[in-house]
Amino acid sequence: MKLASLKDGRDGRLLVVSRDLQWAVEVPEIALTMQAALDNWSDCEPALRAVAAQLEQGDCSQARAFDPQVCSSPLPRAYHWADGSAYVNHVELVRRARGAELPDSFWSDPLIYQGGSDCFVGPCDPIVADPAGGIDFEAEIAVITGDVAMGVDSLQALDSVRLLMLVNDVSLRQLIPGELAKGFGFYQSKPASAFSPVAVTPDELAGAWQGGRVCRPLLSTLNAQPFGRPQAGEDMTFHFGQLIAHACRTREMGAGAIIGSGTVSNKQGTAHGSAIADGGRGYSCIAELRMIETIRDGQPATAFMQPGDQIRIEMLDQTGASIFGAIEQTVQPPARSG
Amino acid sequence: MKLASLKDGRDGRLLVVSRDLQWAVEVPEIALTMQAALDNWSDCEPALRAVAAQLEQGDCSQARAFDPQVCSSPLPRAYHWADGSAYVNHVELVRRARGAELPDSFWSDPLIYQGGSDCFVGPCDPIVADPAGGIDFEAEIAVITGDVAMGVDSLQALDSVRLLMLVNDVSLRQLIPGELAKGFGFYQSKPASAFSPVAVTPDELAGAWQGGRVCRPLLSTLNAQPFGRPQAGEDMTFHFGQLIAHACRTREMGAGAIIGSGTVSNKQGTAHGSAIADGGRGYSCIAELRMIETIRDGQPATAFMQPGDQIRIEMLDQTGASIFGAIEQTVQPPARSG
Repeated sequence: MKLASLKDGRDGRLLVVSRDLQWAVEVPEIALTMQAALDNWSDCEPALRAVAAQLEQGDCSQARAFDPQVCSSPLPRAYHWADGSAYVNHVELVRRARGAELPDSFWSDPLIYQGGSDCFVGPCDPIVADPAGGIDFEAEIAVITGDVAMGVDSLQALDSVRLLMLVNDVSLRQLIPGELAKGFGFYQSKPASAFSPVAVTPDELAGAWQGGRVCRPLLSTLNAQPFGRPQAGEDMTFHFGQLIAHACRTREMGAGAIIGSGTVSNKQGTAHGSAIADGGRGYSCIAELRMIETIRDGQPATAFMQPGDQIRIEMLDQTGASIFGAIEQTVQPPARSG
Repeated sequence: MKLASLKDGRDGRLLVVSRDLQWAVEVPEIALTMQAALDNWSDCEPALRAVAAQLEQGDCSQARAFDPQVCSSPLPRAYHWADGSAYVNHVELVRRARGAELPDSFWSDPLIYQGGSDCFVGPCDPIVADPAGGIDFEAEIAVITGDVAMGVDSLQALDSVRLLMLVNDVSLRQLIPGELAKGFGFYQSKPASAFSPVAVTPDELAGAWQGGRVCRPLLSTLNAQPFGRPQAGEDMTFHFGQLIAHACRTREMGAGAIIGSGTVSNKQGTAHGSAIADGGRGYSCIAELRMIETIRDGQPATAFMQPGDQIRIEMLDQTGASIFGAIEQTVQPPARSG
């Protein structure tokens, strides 16, 4: 089953979307919003699946053409958005470039940070940010959970996964060093994130959903040039069940919580992977490429994003069809500096 | 105007509460929940104020006795909960005890962390936590905002303050050093926070709301013994407008966002304040007292909270009446370790 939210007010209007992303139908008789469906999932899920099944059978009488442009993120706002760094290669690479060691514990104890969740932007909305901040995209996968009890173990935690999405966890690289040095984690360096047009139930991934990991390449395209295609199922040190269990060690988590994978990153049998231009799988953010350049050449060559730059993030199934629809965002400076 | 939320489902039922905290009335014809009222504040505020005025005039026909025990936190869950460290004395004290310098920038650049907001506990609910974590309370003040634009300045930001509350930002002290050392800020070390039974509009504070600060003592009582009574209007290096502006430098903030002051802490004309037992104003968390003990005696003498320990946090007006009602929580170990 695939779900989306039509832009409308603060919480959007819930849509059931056909598997081929061509059709969508509103379901106000089941739930007005995605959060309402998640709040009452045991009642809503069967009813939503019945609508989805009708759509697949070609019963589109109530449906209209699905248009990601008029969609918000599946949850336009959420009560919890925490992003892990499950691909430790990404962390190791960023640290190595600045000469910092990776503590051994990073391979057994997940890194996670809590992000702003009151004002997500839509999948096709601009990235509004000052270029002086060093604007970077981060292509990731995220899950939306149901209610999760405190102290859940990592296998039980997987049962709480309701939906999966893609994320662009936009980062302001120039603000990160100063902010992390203060010791309290990211805040200003992480402006509003955007999620894929569609959130899907795990069964939509079929064989690609294995052990709490999504085993498909994650495609990032920067200004129409392929930038990354790492296998999301590889090098994910912590699966989503482990990330959820980590998040719930000392507190419970409420339905609609979003947990991210962190930037998807492959080692590719090399020290830290290589760029698509060099025959590799590339990267899911500009910072990693700059780190490789720094390690190799002593300084980065690739610039961060500038006004007008466009990033597209997508994942295709084995037949080449888009699973989640595409995040497609263009950088736009804030009005006050524009 | 004073507002509260009766426990009911995930979001509670909105109550208008009399100034003396004796009476409460449900207002489903205005807004079902506090978040709904905040989402549509310009319409709801006048209607809610009319009900509040009726209550003050003794028109209690629709009202019932107000009982904090059956209340959730004013927002049972929120889309944004970020806590500043506006009382830099608290930060300086914690750092000095471990021999770390306070960077000069901490006096001009607010520290802020984002906390879990999907599952707040009620003002009289237990603190469910493993005592091995080093359970501490943190008595603070918080504001609930309306919508705030990106790049707002600190004076404009004050106009977005809709309501004020008290907070117990429970902390697990033994988990903090390891977690902060990882560099991404607090997560497991900050279990569910609790807020005062009642949230009040700034006008309820009358002369005590000055320049974005609340100029009244914040009273913390541990196991029926006075523990702290610092003046919340003193030593607050950053007022709430500055904290909100900091939070909105690179993103907008949505209605119902909660911004906390951090642990209220006074220097009291000394190096770092002194305990009530020593004739001082005391502290708003156990950690500060332990730091003073460590600085003075080489080691802390006061234990963190144990099962059965009770913390009460309250603020009185000039007549001795409770402004927000009291947070009153007792420590209870999690079921799995109980």
